[in-house]
Amino acid sequence: MDTVARLRAEFEAPGLYLDEPEALRPFAVDWTGKFRGATPLVARPRSTEEVSRLLAACNRAGIAVVPQGGNTGMVGGSVPRGGEVVLSLSRMNRIENYDSATETVQCQAGVVLEALHRELAERGRAFAVDLGARGSCQVGGMIATNAGGIKVLRYGHMREQLRGLEVVLADGSVLSNLNRLRKNNTGLDLKHLFVGSEGILGVITRAVLQTRPLWTARQTALFGLPAPAGLSALAAYLMRSLDGLSSLEFLMRDALDLVLAHQPQARDPFAARHGAYVLAETESAQDRDGEPALSVLAGALGQGLAADALIAESEGQRADFWRLRETIADAIGKTGLTHKFDVTVPPGAIPAFIERVAALASSFEGLVPILFGHLGDGNVHVNLMQGKGLAEAPFRALEGRLGEAVYGQVRDLGGSVSAEHGIGVLKRAYLGYSRTTSEIALMRRMKALLDPKGILNPGVMFEP
Amino acid sequence: MDTVARLRAEFEAPGLYLDEPEALRPFAVDWTGKFRGATPLVARPRSTEEVSRLLAACNRAGIAVVPQGGNTGMVGGSVPRGGEVVLSLSRMNRIENYDSATETVQCQAGVVLEALHRELAERGRAFAVDLGARGSCQVGGMIATNAGGIKVLRYGHMREQLRGLEVVLADGSVLSNLNRLRKNNTGLDLKHLFVGSEGILGVITRAVLQTRPLWTARQTALFGLPAPAGLSALAAYLMRSLDGLSSLEFLMRDALDLVLAHQPQARDPFAARHGAYVLAETESAQDRDGEPALSVLAGALGQGLAADALIAESEGQRADFWRLRETIADAIGKTGLTHKFDVTVPPGAIPAFIERVAALASSFEGLVPILFGHLGDGNVHVNLMQGKGLAEAPFRALEGRLGEAVYGQVRDLGGSVSAEHGIGVLKRAYLGYSRTTSEIALMRRMKALLDPKGILNPGVMFEP
Repeated sequence: MDTVARLRAEFEAPGLYLDEPEALRPFAVDWTGKFRGATPLVARPRSTEEVSRLLAACNRAGIAVVPQGGNTGMVGGSVPRGGEVVLSLSRMNRIENYDSATETVQCQAGVVLEALHRELAERGRAFAVDLGARGSCQVGGMIATNAGGIKVLRYGHMREQLRGLEVVLADGSVLSNLNRLRKNNTGLDLKHLFVGSEGILGVITRAVLQTRPLWTARQTALFGLPAPAGLSALAAYLMRSLDGLSSLEFLMRDALDLVLAHQPQARDPFAARHGAYVLAETESAQDRDGEPALSVLAGALGQGLAADALIAESEGQRADFWRLRETIADAIGKTGLTHKFDVTVPPGAIPAFIERVAALASSFEGLVPILFGHLGDGNVHVNLMQGKGLAEAPFRALEGRLGEAVYGQVRDLGGSVSAEHGIGVLKRAYLGYSRTTSEIALMRRMKALLDPKGILNPGVMFEP
Repeated sequence: MDTVARLRAEFEAPGLYLDEPEALRPFAVDWTGKFRGATPLVARPRSTEEVSRLLAACNRAGIAVVPQGGNTGMVGGSVPRGGEVVLSLSRMNRIENYDSATETVQCQAGVVLEALHRELAERGRAFAVDLGARGSCQVGGMIATNAGGIKVLRYGHMREQLRGLEVVLADGSVLSNLNRLRKNNTGLDLKHLFVGSEGILGVITRAVLQTRPLWTARQTALFGLPAPAGLSALAAYLMRSLDGLSSLEFLMRDALDLVLAHQPQARDPFAARHGAYVLAETESAQDRDGEPALSVLAGALGQGLAADALIAESEGQRADFWRLRETIADAIGKTGLTHKFDVTVPPGAIPAFIERVAALASSFEGLVPILFGHLGDGNVHVNLMQGKGLAEAPFRALEGRLGEAVYGQVRDLGGSVSAEHGIGVLKRAYLGYSRTTSEIALMRRMKALLDPKGILNPGVMFEP
C-alpha cells in the first residue's frame, strides 16, 4: 500500500484530506519559490483531537509529517522534501477567548498574526510581536520558530509572550498546559523546549499569549550617518537614552538607493547623501510632545553621532520613514538574484561585520552587498546580489562557498548563523557554527526521546 | 566504605572538601531554620572542571549531591535531607568579564547578586532582576529557580536576562554555550530546560547575563484604597497608563500595621487609614519632571480608583515608601509564627482571592491573614499567622490542611502554587495543582534522561 492508502486506512475523517494534485501544489513550495518538494497528501485538521489521531496514525504506520503554518519561512523548514504528508494548521484559526483577569488571549495555532492584531486592537490591546509577514504567518509557526521582528528590542520574541502551550507529540499524546500566568515556577517549564523547535518535537495546536496595552503615542526619528562605522555608537547612545525605544533599524546607502529606484512612493528625506541610516521609534502611553526625543536627537547631533536627523511630524511622514526600511526586500527582489543571510553579530561589531562582508563580496565575482536589519539586536540581513556580467548559473553555484565565507565571519565575531529564521534545511551544515558539540548531541537525544520513529519534520535541523 | 571515603577515593583535590562537623552545620539548614538535614561532606569547587570531576565521581559511585548557592530558598530545595553531599558554588564567585559589544556580563554561578549590581553600576549599567535576598543569593541559584522579584513586571525573570549558560550534567559532562546574543535561533535552545530546574538536571557553573542601562530617573507613588476590592482596577489602570512602570506592589492594612508596630523608622504617610495600599514606581532614562506621573495620579483619583495618593518628593521619601513594603516579612517574623504561601493568581482575581483567604483563615482557629506582594504579576505572599489563644503545636499541625485549603483556592482561580519560590520539597504534593499529568510525566522522563542514576538533588520537585 502506498503512503496515502496506509494513512487513510489508519485514520479518516470527513474533509480532512486534500489529494488532488492541483490542490497539493501550493503546500509543496515555499513563498520564495526556493524550496520545492512534493507531497502525496495534505491533512487539514480542525481540532487538537484530529491532530492527535492523525499523528498517532502516522506514528503507527511510520509515515513522515511536515507541519505547516503560514509557510512564510526562509529556510525550507515547512516544505515537504521527500513525499512527506503535510499537516496544515490553517483551518485551526480560532481566537478562542480573551481573559481580562490576566490580559491574555488563547488561540489555535493557525491564527494569522494580522487577525490577532486586529482582534486585540478592538479591545485597546496589542500583541508585542510584529513582522513583515504579518498577513500570512501563523501563531503556531511563529512559536515553532521563535519569531522576532521589529520590536524584539523592547518586548522580546514569541518566547517572552508565551504563557501557555498545547502540543501534540509524535505518538499522538497531548502535552497541554493552557497556563495564563506570568509567574508560574512549578517544576520544569517544558513549553520552552518547543519554542524554536521547528516542528521536530511536536505539533503546536494552541497557545495562550500575553497581550500589552495598545500604546499609540509614538516618536519616530531618522538619522543619517557619514559611514557605517558610526552605527554601533549611535545605537548604544539611543538605547541608553530612550527607555521607550521599541524599534531600532538600520540600512546602508545602497539599500536606500534600491528602494528609491523601485518604489515610486519613496523619496530621500534628506537633502544630502549619507553612508548609513538609522530608524528609531519609541512607543509610549501618553504623548510627550516630542520633548524627550528632541533632546535626545540634539544630543546625538551635538556629540557627532549622526550627521543629520529628522523627527516624523505626521503619521504620513512616519509611514514614509518606515517604507524605506520595509520595502528593501521587495526592491531587492525587483533588482535581481540574491543570496540572503540572516545573522546576528554583537551589536558593537556591526561596523566590523559590514566591512568584512564588503571585502568578501568584492572577492566573489564582484557581488553587490546590500545590508540592513535590526540594529539594536545585532540582527543583520545580508544580501549579496548578482553583479553586472555574472550569469545566473555561476551566481547560483556560489551558494556553498558564500555560506562558508559569511557564516565563517559571523562565527569569528561571536555571532549566530541564524538570528530569526531558524535552521530548517538551509543551515543544517552550519548549526555547529553557533552551537557546541555537546548541545547538538543533547538536541539529538531530545529528538530521539520525543519522536523515536523520526516522523516529525525529518531532515529539518539535523541531517536525516 | 562510607560515602565520604568512597567519594574521596574517586576524586580528591587540595582544599576541596569540608568535613568537620562544625563546618558542615551551616550547609545543612536553610536560612529560615525550617528545613534541617545532615551532610557528611561539603565540596567547594573553584572551577567548572572540578565540578565536572566531582559529579563524574559521584555518578560512578552512586552518591547523591545537593547543589547549594546562597541557600536563600523557601522550599527546602538546597538543604541535604538524607545525608547527601553538598556541592557549594560559593567559591565560584568570579565576575569573569564584561563585553561592551553586547552589553553582557559573564560570571561564575556563585556570584552574589549584590556584587553583580555593584560591579555593573560602576559601568553605568544595571542587572534587571532585584530581590530582597540580594546580599546572599547567587546567580546560579537564581537561574536554577528562575528568580523574579520586584521588577518582573517590566523586565521579566532571570530567564529573560539569560544569554548563555554552562551546566555540568550528572555524568560530569559539560553542556556549554556562552552565547552573548539576544537573537540566536539555531536549533533547540536547551538552556531553558535548566532555568527553574532546581538542581535536578545539572549544576549551573557559568552564565552570560544581559545588562541594561542604569536608569535612575524615578517616580514613586503610594496609593491608599478604601478596600482590596479596588486593587485590580487600579493595577490595570496604572499598567495601561505608565509605560515605564517597573514595580507595582501591594500590601493590606494589616501588613502596614505590623510594620508600624515593629519598625521604629516606619510611619504611616497618610493622615487617614486605608484598607489597602499600592506602591508604584517608574524608571526612565531622563527626568520627566513628574508631569506624566502627576497626570496619571490625578486620573486615578478622578476616576475613583484610589482614595488618596502621594508622590515621593525626595530619595528619603522614596525610601520611606519602600521600607513599608520591604520590611513586612521581617515584621511578621518579629510578631509570631506564620504559615507562608507564595502563589500567583490572575491579577484580576486578587480581590476575590483576598476575600477567600480571609474566610479560610477565620475558619482555621482564627488565623490572622497578612497579604502583600507583586500586584502587577498577581503574585501574592500569603501569611497565615498564629492568632491569640492558639499554641505552637496545634498551630504547626495545621500545615497540611492549610496547604490543601490555600492551594485549592489558588487552583480554583486558575493560579499557580508557586509564583517565585519553586517546588523544592515543600510543594511536591501540589505540583499537580499547577501542572498537568502529561507535563509531570514528561518532566520525569527528562530527569531520567539527564540523570539516570538520580544523583542530583533527589527528592526535590518529585517524590523520591
